[in-house]
Amino acid sequence: MTNHQPDPTLDLVFERIVDIPKELVWTAWTTPEHIKQWFTPAPWKTVDCEIDLRPGGMFRTVMQSPEGQDFPNTGCFLEIVENQKLVWTSALTTGYRPAKAQADGLGLAFTAVISLEAHGAGGTRYTATVIHADPESRKKHEDMGFHDGWGKAFDQLVALMKKEMKKEK
Amino acid sequence: MTNHQPDPTLDLVFERIVDIPKELVWTAWTTPEHIKQWFTPAPWKTVDCEIDLRPGGMFRTVMQSPEGQDFPNTGCFLEIVENQKLVWTSALTTGYRPAKAQADGLGLAFTAVISLEAHGAGGTRYTATVIHADPESRKKHEDMGFHDGWGKAFDQLVALMKKEMKKEK
Repeated sequence: MTNHQPDPTLDLVFERIVDIPKELVWTAWTTPEHIKQWFTPAPWKTVDCEIDLRPGGMFRTVMQSPEGQDFPNTGCFLEIVENQKLVWTSALTTGYRPAKAQADGLGLAFTAVISLEAHGAGGTRYTATVIHADPESRKKHEDMGFHDGWGKAFDQLVALMKKEMKKEK
Repeated sequence: MTNHQPDPTLDLVFERIVDIPKELVWTAWTTPEHIKQWFTPAPWKTVDCEIDLRPGGMFRTVMQSPEGQDFPNTGCFLEIVENQKLVWTSALTTGYRPAKAQADGLGLAFTAVISLEAHGAGGTRYTATVIHADPESRKKHEDMGFHDGWGKAFDQLVALMKKEMKKEK
């Protein structure tokens, strides 16, 4: 496995300790029916999602603005270690093909490393390291509301999976 | 493993059948001391090379023009199946970080899939599939002399490894 020591000038890090097991966080990140329920901070929606969970496989989402405009994104999975680590990038699309938006210098190229570690009894230390090409891209992502956005989305993930835990009881 | 069915509108394919075993082609592609001797069609040179052969690992080369100007490139390995398949991309750099040139819309973003298959007694079917974001990038790469360049470099690879085979006898 690759070591992902964050570089503070280039990377953004979002970290949380939560009281749901890492297997549930993994499920929320790797199944379209879950992604559609938590991935985009309300009132935005994720109206479609496709996941081909293998290196080179497609990670496609369609986000929808409150005004009803669709924003499709297709990324590519890079590393998959079940219940432990998920790496995907917006710089490539299905089958490792370079993303067109990146070839044009548009869009925001980043790679996300989602790390899950067991914490206490049934809890998880969740770390999302989001790595960029240069300080400008990092700043652009931060100014777009990275911390607030990833925070709200992750709150939705946790609330969703707690509801599922209750159902199972 | 990902299936790499080439798309003729987006990909360039270079294929050869040669009379050296695939293990030697693999060695030529994965060791810096070999890369430096074949990777760049003469009179260009590859004056430096660094290889960290794992998914997310660095693939760095420094090409030098006949006038002595250096052109450093750092790509990223994606898939490594010994003696069989090597995938790397110029769209990412070490640790899956998006490449700066791509974030700026400069440079040529491509992913190379090198496939090796045994052919007859001690021969190899060599296929390099080079995949691009869009038809414009494909055409740009072709116009830069893709077929001639990859052909001359591969001739150098074969000549080098034949010399090594003789030494070993």
